[in-house]
Amino acid sequence: MSMKNIVVAGGGVLGSQIAFQTAFKGFNVTIWLRSEGSIGRAKPKLERVKNIYLTTLEQMKTDPSAYCNGFTDKKDLTDDEIDELKNKAELAYDNITLTTSYAEAGNDADLIIEAIAEDPKQKIPFYQELAKNIPDKTIIVTNSSTLLPSAFAEYTGRPEKYLALHFANSIWKNNTAEVMGHAGTDQKYYDIVVDFAEKIGMVPLQLKKEQPGYILNSMLVPFLNAAEMLYAKGVADPETIDKTWVLATGAPIGPFRILDIVGLTTAYNIVIMNPNASDIETIEGKIAAMLKEKIDAGKTGINAGEGFYKY
Amino acid sequence: MSMKNIVVAGGGVLGSQIAFQTAFKGFNVTIWLRSEGSIGRAKPKLERVKNIYLTTLEQMKTDPSAYCNGFTDKKDLTDDEIDELKNKAELAYDNITLTTSYAEAGNDADLIIEAIAEDPKQKIPFYQELAKNIPDKTIIVTNSSTLLPSAFAEYTGRPEKYLALHFANSIWKNNTAEVMGHAGTDQKYYDIVVDFAEKIGMVPLQLKKEQPGYILNSMLVPFLNAAEMLYAKGVADPETIDKTWVLATGAPIGPFRILDIVGLTTAYNIVIMNPNASDIETIEGKIAAMLKEKIDAGKTGINAGEGFYKY
Repeated sequence: MSMKNIVVAGGGVLGSQIAFQTAFKGFNVTIWLRSEGSIGRAKPKLERVKNIYLTTLEQMKTDPSAYCNGFTDKKDLTDDEIDELKNKAELAYDNITLTTSYAEAGNDADLIIEAIAEDPKQKIPFYQELAKNIPDKTIIVTNSSTLLPSAFAEYTGRPEKYLALHFANSIWKNNTAEVMGHAGTDQKYYDIVVDFAEKIGMVPLQLKKEQPGYILNSMLVPFLNAAEMLYAKGVADPETIDKTWVLATGAPIGPFRILDIVGLTTAYNIVIMNPNASDIETIEGKIAAMLKEKIDAGKTGINAGEGFYKY
Repeated sequence: MSMKNIVVAGGGVLGSQIAFQTAFKGFNVTIWLRSEGSIGRAKPKLERVKNIYLTTLEQMKTDPSAYCNGFTDKKDLTDDEIDELKNKAELAYDNITLTTSYAEAGNDADLIIEAIAEDPKQKIPFYQELAKNIPDKTIIVTNSSTLLPSAFAEYTGRPEKYLALHFANSIWKNNTAEVMGHAGTDQKYYDIVVDFAEKIGMVPLQLKKEQPGYILNSMLVPFLNAAEMLYAKGVADPETIDKTWVLATGAPIGPFRILDIVGLTTAYNIVIMNPNASDIETIEGKIAAMLKEKIDAGKTGINAGEGFYKY
């Protein structure tokens, strides 16, 4: 089947990036939003993404380190080729349609990328309403980070055409996409989604089974938790822990710089999912308290200018 | 206090490297060994280390990537400076004393680095006998990876002068040394050991509290375990898992290449410490079975030419 009409549901940070990148790669993109208010909030996000593309592409003319894998496979672009990509970014921005209508969005959709809030109470009615408004051919993927496709498959009316396609933030740079079905996903549609991910400039990372946290977070969460534990127990300070990891493994940064990028609020929300976290005598309780103290002081990470490090 | 006479107890892989590096940096080094047989086995290990130093230093004249942090802080050495270091390696080899006598080794020791087998049944009598043969001034450190200094402090006759100094394999390249006391270690002697670690070209990584696994293994073990879990559960293959980690974190290699370096036998021995590992229905059991299959096929890692990857 040929993929042409792509719908992104949700205009948040990830939704706007996915929509923009998909349009940038030449697909017809419609963003479905819950309300006129959401449309108003999505527009400046799209404009911000467009400006990042334009600025970064211009930088690439003189600074090879500005190169982003999501823009193109080709290295050493000429100035003309870069201007062509800038033109594509402008066109992408102009051509994205925003609508609150299920019918308008779903009408002739080949693929719908669900990127709405991480809340089953929002996702379930969304899928149920969507199912009434889309043709048989439509494949649906979820970008959910924390919820499993098996939890929603039945509500889509097409469990065999439903799976997860999980993007990373700053999609134009961090161009990986984890592809994960549930037990009822048909391999045929899984393969189509893998192919689509490549066509929009992503490196598809294929999971053969459903796994909470996908591949990356399944490793990142216990790794960061171990680092937090060392600090919360008073074994060593973040600088020493990071230095140990960097020197021993050759990694560019250690766990506390990663935590600053992930954001301490996210790290905190993960830790407090553990029931032990409410008891300060436990390790999880100590980690939660340590993170909360930083968050309360506004030191939530790199975006705030300070987390475990100052920026 | 001035550190001059250093004893290394044990002439295994790490013991010979620690002894050689310490002599290379100008200290008087004696290796204490249990028997004449051990002396016979230690000598070729020392010669092998010497040859690595000489070959690597010669390489550094033409290949900057051969540079090893443990040799010197200085970058861009002249050929004359390199020849001087080669001379120091020759002198180090010539000047190391090997003995089976506690009295000869301990007599005037400023520091004893214990690097004997990871077996309390060997370590305890060693410390007890040692205590009878050393002066008051002698500081003792253990290079143990898996046992805690608090378990042995009482047998040293000087708990306040006893702590851990934990080296990495290929000490001349991987020049980190984790410094860790037990609750009864005197800060004064801890600081002396930190200073000594710097003087022999190590980057001291300071732990403020006793911690099984120190800093590095406290993070590495759960991280590698998470990766093994993904593969053992059939979620993804080692190549995909490694690619995910490398692309997402910028690390030079992923967990399965690290496992090939660590060695699958070590990884297996860590997993089977978990009682679940004997039940194939558990994750630990699946990981143990997966590793055992590779080990039985001789694929124990990079040293065997094959592990998860071929070399």
